[in-house]
Amino acid sequence: MNFRSDLALECREPLRSQPEGLAWSEERRGEIRVSRVQVTSAAAAQAMGKPQGHYVTLDVPPFGESADIFGEALDCAARELAALVPPAGTVLVVGLGNDGITPDALGPRCCAQVLATRHLGGELAKAAGMENLRPVACLAAGVLGRTGMESGEWIAAAVRVLEPVAVITIDALAARRLARLGCTVQLADSGIIPGSGVGNARKAITPEALGRPVISVGVPTVVDAATLAVDLLEQSGAQLPEAVLRRALAPGGAQMMVTPREVDLLIERAAKLLAMAINCALHPGWQPEDFLALV
Amino acid sequence: MNFRSDLALECREPLRSQPEGLAWSEERRGEIRVSRVQVTSAAAAQAMGKPQGHYVTLDVPPFGESADIFGEALDCAARELAALVPPAGTVLVVGLGNDGITPDALGPRCCAQVLATRHLGGELAKAAGMENLRPVACLAAGVLGRTGMESGEWIAAAVRVLEPVAVITIDALAARRLARLGCTVQLADSGIIPGSGVGNARKAITPEALGRPVISVGVPTVVDAATLAVDLLEQSGAQLPEAVLRRALAPGGAQMMVTPREVDLLIERAAKLLAMAINCALHPGWQPEDFLALV
Amino acid sequence: MNFRSDLALECREPLRSQPEGLAWSEERRGEIRVSRVQVTSAAAAQAMGKPQGHYVTLDVPPFGESADIFGEALDCAARELAALVPPAGTVLVVGLGNDGITPDALGPRCCAQVLATRHLGGELAKAAGMENLRPVACLAAGVLGRTGMESGEWIAAAVRVLEPVAVITIDALAARRLARLGCTVQLADSGIIPGSGVGNARKAITPEALGRPVISVGVPTVVDAATLAVDLLEQSGAQLPEAVLRRALAPGGAQMMVTPREVDLLIERAAKLLAMAINCALHPGWQPEDFLALV
Amino acid sequence: MNFRSDLALECREPLRSQPEGLAWSEERRGEIRVSRVQVTSAAAAQAMGKPQGHYVTLDVPPFGESADIFGEALDCAARELAALVPPAGTVLVVGLGNDGITPDALGPRCCAQVLATRHLGGELAKAAGMENLRPVACLAAGVLGRTGMESGEWIAAAVRVLEPVAVITIDALAARRLARLGCTVQLADSGIIPGSGVGNARKAITPEALGRPVISVGVPTVVDAATLAVDLLEQSGAQLPEAVLRRALAPGGAQMMVTPREVDLLIERAAKLLAMAINCALHPGWQPEDFLALV
Repeated sequence: MNFRSDLALECREPLRSQPEGLAWSEERRGEIRVSRVQVTSAAAAQAMGKPQGHYVTLDVPPFGESADIFGEALDCAARELAALVPPAGTVLVVGLGNDGITPDALGPRCCAQVLATRHLGGELAKAAGMENLRPVACLAAGVLGRTGMESGEWIAAAVRVLEPVAVITIDALAARRLARLGCTVQLADSGIIPGSGVGNARKAITPEALGRPVISVGVPTVVDAATLAVDLLEQSGAQLPEAVLRRALAPGGAQMMVTPREVDLLIERAAKLLAMAINCALHPGWQPEDFLALV
Repeated sequence: MNFRSDLALECREPLRSQPEGLAWSEERRGEIRVSRVQVTSAAAAQAMGKPQGHYVTLDVPPFGESADIFGEALDCAARELAALVPPAGTVLVVGLGNDGITPDALGPRCCAQVLATRHLGGELAKAAGMENLRPVACLAAGVLGRTGMESGEWIAAAVRVLEPVAVITIDALAARRLARLGCTVQLADSGIIPGSGVGNARKAITPEALGRPVISVGVPTVVDAATLAVDLLEQSGAQLPEAVLRRALAPGGAQMMVTPREVDLLIERAAKLLAMAINCALHPGWQPEDFLALV
Repeated sequence: MNFRSDLALECREPLRSQPEGLAWSEERRGEIRVSRVQVTSAAAAQAMGKPQGHYVTLDVPPFGESADIFGEALDCAARELAALVPPAGTVLVVGLGNDGITPDALGPRCCAQVLATRHLGGELAKAAGMENLRPVACLAAGVLGRTGMESGEWIAAAVRVLEPVAVITIDALAARRLARLGCTVQLADSGIIPGSGVGNARKAITPEALGRPVISVGVPTVVDAATLAVDLLEQSGAQLPEAVLRRALAPGGAQMMVTPREVDLLIERAAKLLAMAINCALHPGWQPEDFLALV
Repeated sequence: MNFRSDLALECREPLRSQPEGLAWSEERRGEIRVSRVQVTSAAAAQAMGKPQGHYVTLDVPPFGESADIFGEALDCAARELAALVPPAGTVLVVGLGNDGITPDALGPRCCAQVLATRHLGGELAKAAGMENLRPVACLAAGVLGRTGMESGEWIAAAVRVLEPVAVITIDALAARRLARLGCTVQLADSGIIPGSGVGNARKAITPEALGRPVISVGVPTVVDAATLAVDLLEQSGAQLPEAVLRRALAPGGAQMMVTPREVDLLIERAAKLLAMAINCALHPGWQPEDFLALV
């Protein structure tokens, strides 16, 4: 039974000492707290259980509490993202995850609201009032079980066609603490390895594998039931035999997740916020409202 | 922090002594275990935290493991249900719950697959090869927040129009143990009070309130995160202050649920099984396959 | 083969003479043309093939051309609707039609975006900043084939519970001319008889039947293929035997409809426009944008 | 105003003489009529307005009349398809069209029910009882407007990764006669050029372009309103000026389509039939029912 978190911030918390090559800072932008974790040595990467790279975490107002996404959270996410993406050239946006599993559907649902522009020729774009838009292509990679191809294979194939200056991925994340659900956004430049969290690592979607920047944007939507339980027991100083825990927490081998009751709403709001942040980051002259009419 | 289970079977387990008016029995039907709990005194009802009535629980093969619903589970559920419904006369079938919240969507999705026949006049029914079908009407009551009327109000209004001999409700349930999710069906004749589990009781959907039998059919789809945690701590002999638990388990007051990762699939399969069991129970001369072509 | 139009405006056009009791006027509101047809005698009703009442038609900018619904069309539709509904008291909003048949799905999809407020108690409403909202209940009546109850039965049952001061229905309409699709809104106070257009009239949803005002709001989404064909032949002065026409236009008895290729988009936009117009008409102190965050 | 049909059978009908290189035959398989058109010369291709190749048309019982797809139509479609696909090696199945436009959604909806097997390693396949399955990958290519990449680009990229022995495409077709809708399947080996029917031809999905067999499977779901109207007028011997026709049939330049009222149901049934035919053709030892549990 292993602890699991996709959030660099949570991986740093339990460390007793700060290894060399691990830097951390925090700032406030209005009501948003921005935390930055930099992992710049192999030792720090091993201590964190995360590859080297920069991880930015935004603590935003709970998605569930307001349907209005056009506020500080959007501005802040767009600005942080823009800082990670080269300022010009084609960008490939990829929605990872499975549209048929609610807590995993963030990627495809976000991707559907990102404005694809690469196919707009000069005349067409002019007619639509969309001149000078940056070329963007979108890919909701589906999941292995449904296409017979890995996400990583699709992305590598699309990269060969498009030759983008950067790849942006969107994915649902697992957190360690329930308090992180529905109010956190993470951006990172280290890439990801799909399925590594659930034990079947596959073709990497990393800067090394793709030969260009890969920016991962994610929102935690679940906590593993086992992670929650072991954490609580540890806090209480108690222990239960692993066999008892397995029986209670993963009966029949099923993977159990903790989510807010309103997880469908959370996913919907988060998908919209991230999509608009990506749209704004990639087309700086535009207002968020402009995209609503087009996607 | 209260323990919560909608399953009579689970409410009986922790009882130290068996109060008068509480009977329990168990039998096997092939691979299905059928448990019966009878609550026939006020004392037993209070000890159980459940109204007086008969509760039948079926332990069925996990919904997630096979897409084939036409087996012993269907036969058994149809037979148990038929024993609770008067043999002739109009029946009103009601899907409770919220289609927009995945673990709560069992009722509406099941209801959509129940064959409505009340509107078929003699000629029309004959042309469709559907003579001698029992009159059935279906109602997916939606939720309070979206219609401005309570489920109980809708049902009472429909009962006045239809004058049915019985009402069948379908609802997602909360269990206490994760091992119950995805492999349990409960039937009961005590009726339900919507929202009573989550603390805002409303207009009753009970035999007393509606003046006719009310048969509730349900499948547990979630365990409250708090229930799971308190259970584990108790098993380990440890304790944590309630304030700590609240902070960990219900941050910001959000209700947290534990579900299998495959909850969407579980709901889909359970909805189909229950719908076909209802169809078979109400139209005994028909085969389950016959309904697939009509709903 | 009969001509069919749900638009009073189109029923008036072919009349050779203007019968007594039929009045017509037209005005402009910015880019919107507002036409009013008043049918106030039995002779006029028969000539028109429409019950007595007031019919208001709005020619609005094509729904397919802009995703921005917050313009003159919304203002105008809200104002016309407000003039037809009593200024205070509970209102029941009903979405007619079948969500599973795209060109017929306007009613249910609109209804899902109308704000239901009747269940909000004083404290709850205050907390949500929603004091002084008028009580509104919503009903997507589904269709006969799926519930076993007629729309009219549902509505009559809900009216008994709610005792509303008015009922507003939303429905997809059939037009005679393709040019009407996607750019027309009709409001009427004569009520409707579901299915009367397709030959199986059922329980009336009229002021007489329900004992209170019934305001019908609709948007034409289809033209019958037969209507289109017969119109064209007539214009050309040609004729084809009815048997030939039937074979060409209704092979195997199937009903054939003409729709814009983008009918899914048209329905989505029209549903949103009508929902916001209803919200604004019923809660005059609010801005359209306020509702977006709540539905 | 041009006539338009994607069915080779309908393109052959109006020909006055039979050009060299055009062969035609017809046979019966139980209740299915199988027509074969072979276009083997440039002259025949020009006369037909279709590229050289073999076109097989199946007249099947109307999709709308029975939900049972497991009959002669399935057997016949699977057998004809199997005859066009090499007997071993990886196959790429592509769903063309737009899931958001009902009459164009056949491809994506069919593709979702085709069993993808390429990712199943030996052990995994054995555990699932799926040994000796042929490698299949699926791609619902989405549409240009939503991904920024053409279908043809996606397919070319996937072909480079997979090196399949054949590509199977699924697409909604346009017919000339309404009687063709809902009861016709066409298979062809000539490939297709997406969008060529609606006037914006794009990257070819043809055997020449992809360097391997391309088998197109399709079902007609619409008739262009203009095609229908011009046909009727011609039959009646009448004429209308083109400007009048344009105003009546394509107001504001919108493309108008004729579909059965039940087009949603037609698409659902056709998607299932084609998916099962593809599954059966690619995995000959399996029964159709076996696939239902896996997709």
